[in-house]
Amino acid sequence: MDTASPTRHESGAPLSGTPRSTLGRHRERARTDRAELYAVLDEGLVCHLGVLLDGAPVVLPTCYGRLADTLYLHGSTGASSMRAGPGQPVCVTVTLLDGLVYARSVFAHSANYRCAVVHGVPRPVIDEAGKLRALRAIVEHTTPGSWDHARRPDRRELAATAVLALDLAEASVKVRGGPPGDADADLGTGSAWAGVLPVRTVLGTPEPCSLLPAATVVPAHVAGRDTATPVSGLG
Amino acid sequence: MDTASPTRHESGAPLSGTPRSTLGRHRERARTDRAELYAVLDEGLVCHLGVLLDGAPVVLPTCYGRLADTLYLHGSTGASSMRAGPGQPVCVTVTLLDGLVYARSVFAHSANYRCAVVHGVPRPVIDEAGKLRALRAIVEHTTPGSWDHARRPDRRELAATAVLALDLAEASVKVRGGPPGDADADLGTGSAWAGVLPVRTVLGTPEPCSLLPAATVVPAHVAGRDTATPVSGLG
Repeated sequence: MDTASPTRHESGAPLSGTPRSTLGRHRERARTDRAELYAVLDEGLVCHLGVLLDGAPVVLPTCYGRLADTLYLHGSTGASSMRAGPGQPVCVTVTLLDGLVYARSVFAHSANYRCAVVHGVPRPVIDEAGKLRALRAIVEHTTPGSWDHARRPDRRELAATAVLALDLAEASVKVRGGPPGDADADLGTGSAWAGVLPVRTVLGTPEPCSLLPAATVVPAHVAGRDTATPVSGLG
Repeated sequence: MDTASPTRHESGAPLSGTPRSTLGRHRERARTDRAELYAVLDEGLVCHLGVLLDGAPVVLPTCYGRLADTLYLHGSTGASSMRAGPGQPVCVTVTLLDGLVYARSVFAHSANYRCAVVHGVPRPVIDEAGKLRALRAIVEHTTPGSWDHARRPDRRELAATAVLALDLAEASVKVRGGPPGDADADLGTGSAWAGVLPVRTVLGTPEPCSLLPAATVVPAHVAGRDTATPVSGLG
């Protein structure tokens, strides 16, 4: 099996509708367009990886990358989350919090968000070419430009890094946007303020390492980074 | 059992050191001070709840609140994540992403973050007083000031809301901060730029609901909100 090759679904293939990838609540918030899955995954910076350890779920944040319809995760070969992965089901969730929704009733308070949930059994990527390709995807997703700028992994570093590939076959996207959805009975004078307080993730001013030679210029791929522009997939 | 009462651990009791709440990798990043657990939980806006559904982990974002040493979660009584909760182990993770760490080597690239992971079997909160207390904690954590400003839940709304309480007994906090940790061999002239690109979560300008009466003033608990000031627990 060529673990180096990312999966590609048919262009425009809608997202799966298996029982666990079909929303039970607020089905009107479901998105089935594969492009919306890509958009959420490409804009997020970290995912939350859920694995099963000794019969209980464990949820840990980690970086990731995407090539076509494959999501890549990496970690130390010694990490328990990586050891639990192969052959075991996992869930990878990426959440973009867009706003806090203040409503006239406490009950109608909510959050605006875009959330992608991917289910599946990941496969370990073990060949060197496949690992390099996956690590490039992760690095270019998280810190675009670093793959060409920084020293690439050597054989020892590659051997110390476990890589998992998760097919984007069973996934759901849930989106809530817009104003609060108060009941009609709560509208009208005397009611509470209602609206949305936007939440944004922003990047600050680069903080150079103190060990850099004096007057080292911050390179464009760092200084010019803009979260408003999603990092697109390399696939 | 009085489900209304939040748990209180002895003041200053350090975090547990069970196998799954003891870090396997980068143990130097562990924090065992209970105050650091509170700090991460109180600053976060959403958690990622991991539950077991049909033998596989499912990870979903949700709001939460804290009173002393109890974490409260809520959801529709029809939500699968709420139905799977009682009697079943869950994991609740709150991650604050603080920065992207650019290193001289791709291998030393990392992220600065503070992450709290709580393991346990939640108990359902079923009595009305306990539910109200828990919902107040969740609302005041997510949208401080709303409990007194908005219309509180009526009996029908309370009945439609499932509340779970999770004891902060088995938890870990992991923190990475500071500059990249490149190997000595990678330091020196000709190496890549290294440093940290800060990541911040910020609140924007309130967007009033279009159905509000004209000239409605944005109240102070919304307009004056500042993410730099963590929302403290009510316990």
